[in-house]
Amino acid sequence: MKRGKPTMADVARQAGVSLKTVSRVVNQEPHVRASLQQRVQAAISALGYRRNEAAARLARGATMLTLGLVMENISNEFYSRLAAAVEAAAADHEALVVFGSYEESADKERMLIESMYARGVDSLIVVPSAADHSWLAEHAGLTTVFVDRVPPGLDGADVVLLDDVWGGRIATEHLLARGHRRIALISDDDGISSVRDRATGYRAALAGAGLPAGEELVVRELYDPGRVSGEVTRLLDLPSPPTAFFATNNRAAIGILQALRERPERPAYVGFDDFALADVFNPGVTVVRYDTARLARAAVDLLLNPSPAARRIKVPVELVPRGSGELPPA
Amino acid sequence: MKRGKPTMADVARQAGVSLKTVSRVVNQEPHVRASLQQRVQAAISALGYRRNEAAARLARGATMLTLGLVMENISNEFYSRLAAAVEAAAADHEALVVFGSYEESADKERMLIESMYARGVDSLIVVPSAADHSWLAEHAGLTTVFVDRVPPGLDGADVVLLDDVWGGRIATEHLLARGHRRIALISDDDGISSVRDRATGYRAALAGAGLPAGEELVVRELYDPGRVSGEVTRLLDLPSPPTAFFATNNRAAIGILQALRERPERPAYVGFDDFALADVFNPGVTVVRYDTARLARAAVDLLLNPSPAARRIKVPVELVPRGSGELPPA
Repeated sequence: MKRGKPTMADVARQAGVSLKTVSRVVNQEPHVRASLQQRVQAAISALGYRRNEAAARLARGATMLTLGLVMENISNEFYSRLAAAVEAAAADHEALVVFGSYEESADKERMLIESMYARGVDSLIVVPSAADHSWLAEHAGLTTVFVDRVPPGLDGADVVLLDDVWGGRIATEHLLARGHRRIALISDDDGISSVRDRATGYRAALAGAGLPAGEELVVRELYDPGRVSGEVTRLLDLPSPPTAFFATNNRAAIGILQALRERPERPAYVGFDDFALADVFNPGVTVVRYDTARLARAAVDLLLNPSPAARRIKVPVELVPRGSGELPPA
Repeated sequence: MKRGKPTMADVARQAGVSLKTVSRVVNQEPHVRASLQQRVQAAISALGYRRNEAAARLARGATMLTLGLVMENISNEFYSRLAAAVEAAAADHEALVVFGSYEESADKERMLIESMYARGVDSLIVVPSAADHSWLAEHAGLTTVFVDRVPPGLDGADVVLLDDVWGGRIATEHLLARGHRRIALISDDDGISSVRDRATGYRAALAGAGLPAGEELVVRELYDPGRVSGEVTRLLDLPSPPTAFFATNNRAAIGILQALRERPERPAYVGFDDFALADVFNPGVTVVRYDTARLARAAVDLLLNPSPAARRIKVPVELVPRGSGELPPA
């Protein structure tokens, strides 16, 4: 919470009063004791506090200081990291974050967004489901930025994406460079733009190496580690099994880890999305990583600077070698 | 979101209109088109919807439907699971959740609570820091329930705890039953009641087995896996090293996993707090587990049923054997 300018909260701490009291004094509300008023004014002078637009909105009781975050599931590590990063970016602007998880239900996603809208949350960050989002166009008063995925059916939306094609490409090229020629793709819902883009990167890398993208080694539409584990087992039992895997998200990487627990083979694998325990496994899990804080800050910046023209921002990704992606072909 | 009674959201879906429109009709606000009114009324009749107190509060523009969740760090799995469970429990009452992470700063915890209070959030679930919380007594209008830990300095608060003493006891007895006699305790900040209680259970189990609780094998005040890893390494290098470990939280268990990656020894260990990858490691991580949904529902129930008498609820825990806690002494 370290910032250049003093905030109302700084004034509250300096004066030893609650934020509400500072708010009352700053907004010249009645019924504030004179002694409290003096303490607050002294703190304002000492700190050089100047009432800002955010404080003024707060005083008007507006809820623009609450930012809504709608995503698939807060308990998945991709989303809990995103939530922490959005919280930090929002705190820089004195905003609180209200969150909602829609699990796998597009209906629930819509209900959450409308419910936030009905309660006056007018700034939203949404990781959209694969469903059509054209209904959102009617909410003209709502400022929405999409993160991680392009919302289907909604042109002209602001979107902050990862450099997914590039990520899929460097992951696959990393495995190719270690001599792998049979590299399986373990992927999620093709309706999700980031999933498609990561697969595009995978195919581009194979094509660059003059290899066919054999559909035999491509598995799509896997949403949970359990099903991934089953598919990895099936692939390893093929007459010509893959010697390496590229997993397009953290769930897929975890499913690979699950399957390998029970197997004698030591195929190489690279995941997309870092996770806290990636370097606790042995070998450590090689991943395509990005700066979640940067993703969140970019989204908050777009929210704070609305523009009639749709904007699309790409956050860079990098490969982090930890062991699993450096294993040679069997 | 499946519930017995139809909600405003159900009406909105049935009528094919936004929640806001339903709210306007239900609250007889002006300027709603007659055709929309009719569609909403038809949906209300078809579903048997009855305006409830929550809906009425929503209509009044009150923010009691927003529940505040203040915790250490949303990106730690204990907290992201708790957030998901609180979200689900809140959704049963049509409430949204605004969250805040105070990291290790008691000042930030206070600022977050006051900031939520200033914005009209008057129902709070707090996982309190180890700092004195007597300042909260001044916020008489705020309904606060504490979860996981007793707030220091604040008598008369409602608290939902895990059965921590029992959890520490069954974890340690599990290791004793496998023949371990030198069991180390890897623990966190003693100012946190749950940490103290888990250690009390550990000591009780050792005393029950007629073993002294040698302080040589007790390490406290460890807040991150990196430091835990260092201490586990130090203990394993002792002339008489421990043959087993009890970790009082998920960070401690992860620190043990980190240390063992680099070591030839295979000591047994039991963690407190389940985590998603606990059964992906080999051996799987034996943990003391509890139902996070139950913890969250108990807290929301207390919030919805205020009482002048302070209440304390204990959520049961159980031991889940997965391999790491069943290893024999070397």
